[in-house]
Amino acid sequence: MNSVIKTILNHRSIRKFEDKPLSDEQIKLIVQSAQAASTSSYIQAYSIIGVKDKEKKQKLAELAGGQNYVAENGHFFVFCADLHRHQLIADQYHQDASENLESTEKFMVTVIDAALAAQNAVLAAESMELGAVYIGGLRNQLSEVSSLLKTPSHVLPLFGIAVGYPAQEPDQKQRLPFEHVYHEDEYQQDQTSYLSQLKEYDQQISAYYEQRTNGERKDTWTGQMARLLSRPTRMYMKEFVEKKGFNKR
Amino acid sequence: MNSVIKTILNHRSIRKFEDKPLSDEQIKLIVQSAQAASTSSYIQAYSIIGVKDKEKKQKLAELAGGQNYVAENGHFFVFCADLHRHQLIADQYHQDASENLESTEKFMVTVIDAALAAQNAVLAAESMELGAVYIGGLRNQLSEVSSLLKTPSHVLPLFGIAVGYPAQEPDQKQRLPFEHVYHEDEYQQDQTSYLSQLKEYDQQISAYYEQRTNGERKDTWTGQMARLLSRPTRMYMKEFVEKKGFNKR
Repeated sequence: MNSVIKTILNHRSIRKFEDKPLSDEQIKLIVQSAQAASTSSYIQAYSIIGVKDKEKKQKLAELAGGQNYVAENGHFFVFCADLHRHQLIADQYHQDASENLESTEKFMVTVIDAALAAQNAVLAAESMELGAVYIGGLRNQLSEVSSLLKTPSHVLPLFGIAVGYPAQEPDQKQRLPFEHVYHEDEYQQDQTSYLSQLKEYDQQISAYYEQRTNGERKDTWTGQMARLLSRPTRMYMKEFVEKKGFNKR
Repeated sequence: MNSVIKTILNHRSIRKFEDKPLSDEQIKLIVQSAQAASTSSYIQAYSIIGVKDKEKKQKLAELAGGQNYVAENGHFFVFCADLHRHQLIADQYHQDASENLESTEKFMVTVIDAALAAQNAVLAAESMELGAVYIGGLRNQLSEVSSLLKTPSHVLPLFGIAVGYPAQEPDQKQRLPFEHVYHEDEYQQDQTSYLSQLKEYDQQISAYYEQRTNGERKDTWTGQMARLLSRPTRMYMKEFVEKKGFNKR
């Protein structure tokens, strides 16, 4: 197994960091790694905001739901879908590009572009013995986050990534069975085998939690998902995304 | 520079492959690498369809706009946003999760989840001396692609990845200037410097094309973007995505 695959398979989210900032060289290498990812039709439809300011980080931590590792880390990156520069280009070329820029298709393009770049950033960080965790909690209160980061129209903060020197060694979380996620030639829709795969997975996850907590935590993956699904979250998103100029038509 | 960052920075999309299929071991390692990526709240909201069937690949190549490397490669992966298993879980737990599953927020979660996994897959492939290219063209005719791959409701094919043994060595495409993509503490909105960065980038890109084509191709990045923006594409997407159970509220 080569070192790239080793790094990939060794991933675990780090939520506790040493009090040691990343160097400018590390930040630059992480951003350059992000930029090296594929981009749809060369569109490069994202931006990255690196937050160093302590007060801003503290505020972001509160907005993200009180996760202290949003404030306490080596560096905090915010990945944004960004068609702002494309809007400027359209203006320069005297084009009305709004139909295009505001389409659901372009929304998907920007989100995918940003996510590909982000995963490169995370792997680059991990390869430098740093740890990282994605912060989807940034979407809890995106209007406040946007104001804080002063993002213009056609820019949408999607998630954060806290990066730093790891101060913990968490276990890995086991993924869904290969056969459940990977389909050959077409989507396998046999519900019986689908549900039995989930049952088997539940047993594995349940055994893992039991073992890790000395029998205290009784939980399954489908149980976690059922709880997650029972709480509609961030239902303001559709309206907010549209207000920012995305996903309107 | 470590080998992970070397692999990341060495990326270029490969569009011509040797006629040599990936082994099952290679496919499995690529999928396992994909699955090792972070996933929002452990939701694992994607599936991967690996297409081996030659007729299906040929059909996908036509649907994607006649790109022959969609058919001629070592393996063709289709990454799908997938909340189908979550719908089944909600049913099993006697929950009505439709508000949640159909939200724009969950649509973003699934697209980000799938893209993070995909980028791991691409890097894993590249680390094995394979080449890869994302196929956004799969979204040209997504209804036909969905039928061909028999994806159920709450499953949305997002893009393909053609992987294989490279039969070409393309140049790298230079990215936007670091300062243009990376903002410190807040989004830099000084339009003058923003536009001058784009102008400088245009000059670099223009010199690159001139040099590569012996002066034949005159082009800039903003010129390419202006052409891209002048053609609204895949405007059916909003309706189609909603029909599949995503992004409705």
